[in-house]
Amino acid sequence: MPKIVRTRVEFEGEVRERMAVVVEDQVLPWSAREKLDIVGRPHPRVGGRQIVTGGATYTADVQIPGMLHCKIRRSPLPHAEVLSIDTAEAQTLFGVRGVLTHANAPRIRWFGNSFLFDRFVRFEGDEVAAVAADSEEIAEDALDLIHVRYRELPFVVDPEQAMKPDAPRVHKEGNVIGGPEGDVYERGNLEEGFARSNHVFSERYETQAAVHNCLEPHCCVAMWNGDELVLWTSTQHAYGVRDGVAAALGLPLHKVRVICEFMGAGFGSKQGAGKHEVIAALLAKMTERPVRLYPSRREENLAGGVRHPTIQYLRAGVRRDGKLMALHLRSIANVGAYGTDSSEVGGPVRELYDCANVRTEQFAVYTNAGPAAAFRAPGYVEGMFALESMMDQIAYSLSMDPLQLRLVNYARKDPVRGATYSSKPLDEAYRTGAKMAGWNLRAKAQQMGARRRGLGMASQIWGGGGGPPAYAIIRLNSDGTADLVTGTQDIGTGTKTVLVQIAAEELGLKAEDIRITVGDTLAGPYAPVSAGSMTVPSMGPAVRAAAKSAREELLSLASALMQVSAASLSIRNGIITSTTPSKTVAVSDVTRRIGDFMIVGKGARGPNPPNVKVRTFGAQFAEVEVDVETGDVTVTRVVAVHDFGRIINPLTSGSQIEGGIVQGIGFALMEERFVDPESGTSLNANLEAYKIPTILDIPIIEHALIDRPDESCNSIGSKGAGEPPIIPTAAAIANAVYDAAGVRVRSLPITREKILVEIGKLKLQPKPAGEAPGPAQKRRRPRRG
Amino acid sequence: MPKIVRTRVEFEGEVRERMAVVVEDQVLPWSAREKLDIVGRPHPRVGGRQIVTGGATYTADVQIPGMLHCKIRRSPLPHAEVLSIDTAEAQTLFGVRGVLTHANAPRIRWFGNSFLFDRFVRFEGDEVAAVAADSEEIAEDALDLIHVRYRELPFVVDPEQAMKPDAPRVHKEGNVIGGPEGDVYERGNLEEGFARSNHVFSERYETQAAVHNCLEPHCCVAMWNGDELVLWTSTQHAYGVRDGVAAALGLPLHKVRVICEFMGAGFGSKQGAGKHEVIAALLAKMTERPVRLYPSRREENLAGGVRHPTIQYLRAGVRRDGKLMALHLRSIANVGAYGTDSSEVGGPVRELYDCANVRTEQFAVYTNAGPAAAFRAPGYVEGMFALESMMDQIAYSLSMDPLQLRLVNYARKDPVRGATYSSKPLDEAYRTGAKMAGWNLRAKAQQMGARRRGLGMASQIWGGGGGPPAYAIIRLNSDGTADLVTGTQDIGTGTKTVLVQIAAEELGLKAEDIRITVGDTLAGPYAPVSAGSMTVPSMGPAVRAAAKSAREELLSLASALMQVSAASLSIRNGIITSTTPSKTVAVSDVTRRIGDFMIVGKGARGPNPPNVKVRTFGAQFAEVEVDVETGDVTVTRVVAVHDFGRIINPLTSGSQIEGGIVQGIGFALMEERFVDPESGTSLNANLEAYKIPTILDIPIIEHALIDRPDESCNSIGSKGAGEPPIIPTAAAIANAVYDAAGVRVRSLPITREKILVEIGKLKLQPKPAGEAPGPAQKRRRPRRG
Repeated sequence: MPKIVRTRVEFEGEVRERMAVVVEDQVLPWSAREKLDIVGRPHPRVGGRQIVTGGATYTADVQIPGMLHCKIRRSPLPHAEVLSIDTAEAQTLFGVRGVLTHANAPRIRWFGNSFLFDRFVRFEGDEVAAVAADSEEIAEDALDLIHVRYRELPFVVDPEQAMKPDAPRVHKEGNVIGGPEGDVYERGNLEEGFARSNHVFSERYETQAAVHNCLEPHCCVAMWNGDELVLWTSTQHAYGVRDGVAAALGLPLHKVRVICEFMGAGFGSKQGAGKHEVIAALLAKMTERPVRLYPSRREENLAGGVRHPTIQYLRAGVRRDGKLMALHLRSIANVGAYGTDSSEVGGPVRELYDCANVRTEQFAVYTNAGPAAAFRAPGYVEGMFALESMMDQIAYSLSMDPLQLRLVNYARKDPVRGATYSSKPLDEAYRTGAKMAGWNLRAKAQQMGARRRGLGMASQIWGGGGGPPAYAIIRLNSDGTADLVTGTQDIGTGTKTVLVQIAAEELGLKAEDIRITVGDTLAGPYAPVSAGSMTVPSMGPAVRAAAKSAREELLSLASALMQVSAASLSIRNGIITSTTPSKTVAVSDVTRRIGDFMIVGKGARGPNPPNVKVRTFGAQFAEVEVDVETGDVTVTRVVAVHDFGRIINPLTSGSQIEGGIVQGIGFALMEERFVDPESGTSLNANLEAYKIPTILDIPIIEHALIDRPDESCNSIGSKGAGEPPIIPTAAAIANAVYDAAGVRVRSLPITREKILVEIGKLKLQPKPAGEAPGPAQKRRRPRRG
Repeated sequence: MPKIVRTRVEFEGEVRERMAVVVEDQVLPWSAREKLDIVGRPHPRVGGRQIVTGGATYTADVQIPGMLHCKIRRSPLPHAEVLSIDTAEAQTLFGVRGVLTHANAPRIRWFGNSFLFDRFVRFEGDEVAAVAADSEEIAEDALDLIHVRYRELPFVVDPEQAMKPDAPRVHKEGNVIGGPEGDVYERGNLEEGFARSNHVFSERYETQAAVHNCLEPHCCVAMWNGDELVLWTSTQHAYGVRDGVAAALGLPLHKVRVICEFMGAGFGSKQGAGKHEVIAALLAKMTERPVRLYPSRREENLAGGVRHPTIQYLRAGVRRDGKLMALHLRSIANVGAYGTDSSEVGGPVRELYDCANVRTEQFAVYTNAGPAAAFRAPGYVEGMFALESMMDQIAYSLSMDPLQLRLVNYARKDPVRGATYSSKPLDEAYRTGAKMAGWNLRAKAQQMGARRRGLGMASQIWGGGGGPPAYAIIRLNSDGTADLVTGTQDIGTGTKTVLVQIAAEELGLKAEDIRITVGDTLAGPYAPVSAGSMTVPSMGPAVRAAAKSAREELLSLASALMQVSAASLSIRNGIITSTTPSKTVAVSDVTRRIGDFMIVGKGARGPNPPNVKVRTFGAQFAEVEVDVETGDVTVTRVVAVHDFGRIINPLTSGSQIEGGIVQGIGFALMEERFVDPESGTSLNANLEAYKIPTILDIPIIEHALIDRPDESCNSIGSKGAGEPPIIPTAAAIANAVYDAAGVRVRSLPITREKILVEIGKLKLQPKPAGEAPGPAQKRRRPRRG
């Protein structure tokens, strides 16, 4: 139950009253020594059989009699004013049931001062019109019969160009979000820090627009039941879509039901209501028929979101001993036409190392490109690439072991606020990873011919503590099985599996005796977005609390039946055991005895601990082979050691690590959306010219989990595992490339061309200042400290 | 939360410990003086627009891609052994996907010692085989290609014949359920009672098999999601179907989900799992496709259940002053091939009147006819016809006002156990009804020509107190709307409407701001069967308890925000008001303030009060015109006065009264399933030869509600309204026919033929002993006392 708590805080000399909402959660954490039966063990994927046999109902599988198909007419231009739209011909096409444009759609404010269907289009792919027809083919044909006259406008796709005062304006308010100052963080005294540094390093880094490329696109099916909208959609947040669509359509919340039973990933691009959902709902209303909207891969890659491309200017001042004295980051994130400034590019610089003097200036800039969207550890993947590339460069410059440099700057407390960490086994991750990767042996690698081997590493820091609000309900059936009802969603990560394990552990039931319901706002209470690596640490404790409350009811009934005290009872494997006197009774005997009387447990996630910083940590070590003649890079092995607190299921955690690394390899070496600066249009909105890793690109991945309960984090002791594994991969690969080939590529992806250019520079130019020895001097590489 | 309570009870001299499950419910009843805003007022049907515009999704409307259609091959014989079934030809028919017979179906025990598909068929319509095919037409064609060889067996369709020792046995165990003794109840000393009587009346009554004729047949759609069965079905008990189907298929309960969003009535015939649901599930498993089973009206009328036909021998002994001294009933209920003995024909005799010496002997007898099933107030409709016909006869014989006779025998306490009634305003119902009907003026009716007018009345007693277990969950959304989640079902009675009103009243919200979910065992917690007039009194208090718990959370938050004590706060129309100091805040302001934090209230129905008898009461007065030349009876007006405790919604209560009376008129005058004793087959399994009332048969219906909260019944003060209105109708009509035409028809339905036969007897025979004056002596009819 939420409560409002008033606290008095001193803020700039003034005492102010602050109000906070908290949920009480009386569940003590499982202690590290407690022997758990189900939590912590590999458990096969709940629903896995359905997924691999094709029996799982994804949104695209929803079929409703009379359902229409929607296709969207998109702008072919990066920036234009729509002068007129003539839909008359399209509407006469047999099978066309409805057409929506800015002329007949309600004026729904969508992004800033723009509208669902706007008179201005701001990127190639912007929505201009939508058609609902009897088939996808008819809808597509109809799109060609819509005649649109545009007035072309000047456009800009380069973020640094876009920041100039005379640049074409993507939005009236100007291209730099929040104004020309940017988003500034500062601690200590930057100038003093640099003044006290022995060495100053200054580099420009660049990261690209990577496309999420979820297996499942942003599809949805909208249907009206009377005045109630039912929306099947592929989303990371059923409740968020409910709220967003209700707001867009002016509906009360109880008139929108969102369903997402199975889901084929979002990676951050499906966190709330999208235009497609509102368009489908409007067309369903207009046509009085269910409407399905299934974007093509091209549409998805044009308009479905990309990772914010960044430009980062990073300056670091270090003492002779490697101590960081000053860090200064100026980052520019290109948010495209409708992205937001959510990308925390400066996060790693601010919080990974113990550095007293830090300034980050983050800029988020509109351009006439497809919109940016949060993408698995947004900001940190990009920022970590720059920071950890820089750290590697510093280490080589100072002839220090890169790992030793990191330990010299190890932050024992959160550098931002000085808070204690709930747990921080990053040093252990370094040690374990170094051992697994053979870090100390790396200098001995034989370098023969054109193919050079190298080993690089990088660190990871990320949130993942989750927090309230999150709710769960658990009901016991009369045969001793249980129904766990939640409003969360399983976006492909194994949420169902993990939550069932937690409920089974707490209730003492077998995991297969619990059914979990996710992805239906009608059935389950509020659950947070499956993002920010927060699902397990938010939903997990809520589920445990619900199970605990059910368990207490169960044991109280069992104690009455067994005539022993409830305190003497424990449950395991569906059997309730009393110690003194020694008696057992099956859970199902108790539930059968009470018949249709139902044990209903309700649980909520309690507040995060005060004055404690919850972070996940990790380190990755990448081993690469670089062909110095062709520039070809092959990742041969990645070692990953991560800390997610208590591991609920090593299989799902391991999958997260493998998936993150594979996606990180794509980001490091091959993925990039190209927008042609001449035409402002995308050159590779497909999966032919846009390369993602295939099975042939995937190296040996070895991982270790620092499986140590974080008891001051929450009642299950777990932190999130979703995003961390992608964070260090690109930096570790870039550092390995340097180790192998002696060149630093500071612009992702690390292509053959870029490597060859850098190797060319190496041959032409003198050793750059502050740079470590190249591959020729490999033998002089310092040992690990 | 269910608790087990141990109580010590003395039973036949021994002290025994008895265990009972109780649910705590701390909600005090609304007092009678409390002014309620929403409860007690007419509120239009929730979902009504969907129903009348065709937008409601009934089970028959469920369409799933790839869905097959199932048809059932039924026995054409009343009793036979199936020697062989040859399905080879059917299986080769294009489009046939699966065929089930006793040869390949799992041996699922179904009724007593018989099976889902049995080697013996016991009535015309018994299931022999089932086909799943691409269309209903193909499935029907395939039925004709199944070749069955039967060995015909002797059969019996008359229950008194079936009771004879040498009668053909429908089941091996014998035809009389529970053995030849029957089900005996006795109090006082019957012989003494009769000995002390001045008059003894002895009559034989007969009631017929009436078909439920729900608008929606017993249809279902079965689909497997992996190892989970999803079953859409037209049912009065979603949880009951879940439990029954799970038991039949050997599935754990959490692997079965039952959905029934809209439902077209059950009248008692859809209380649990039926063969059709198990057959559909098996065929869906076999074919790996969803399977829809939609019985025809003929199948429905053959096998879907009928009201138990009864034969009742009733003997009554009365003193000169009308005091009942003894009542003896011997009743025989024909349960058909697979009915049960649930029919409490003796109920009215045992509990309506204050009579010290009572004996009821109830027999339930198998015959080779379609199975009986509970039908709106089972037993009481039949028993009341006999008892109240007899009371009328006694009154006329004693020259007493029939109403006065009832008051002479008025039971102030429950005659069965001596318990106090939670409330019993039956006397008020008599008075009000008599006034409305013009009871005192009835002797003045002009009797001209062949059409004679008459007025008759009868009483009603029935349960309707409901009780636990019943559960509800209510969640508040951030915009101040609410989701009420239940596992109950709205069988067409207005359950959704009434429960929304209760939640709105308790929460102080507008009714339209609450969405209710019913009919999905995945979403809602356990709810009882919608039968026994228990839905409102069971679910209502559970919903109120859930709303109260949510209200308490809401007010605690509001008090923190408003900085006033929670005790000073009240909510009305979505506005929270504090008295001192005078402040207001909208509910939505509070919920918006807490954002995604959710108020979740959980409620359960508390126990029924101990040592109190909860009963509903009522009286109906029927006015008829009898054409003494043709025997034609026209009901011209029915006045009904009923007590259901507090009326939540006068519209839905009124609809129950009207519906009950219409169904009662059909039962009194026209409905009857004929089974030919020569062939054992049904002669009118259709809606052409089986007559039900049409709009032309419906008289003026006037009703009054004794809208007085029953505060010792439950926290909402309401009792059930579903069944009572049909109970007295047939008796009141029969008594009116006597009043009009001077003849008693003791066998329902009262057809023209039966009336003419009785009038013929009247002309031929001397006045029968103990019988009142006929219509010729109308002027001598006694006045109301």
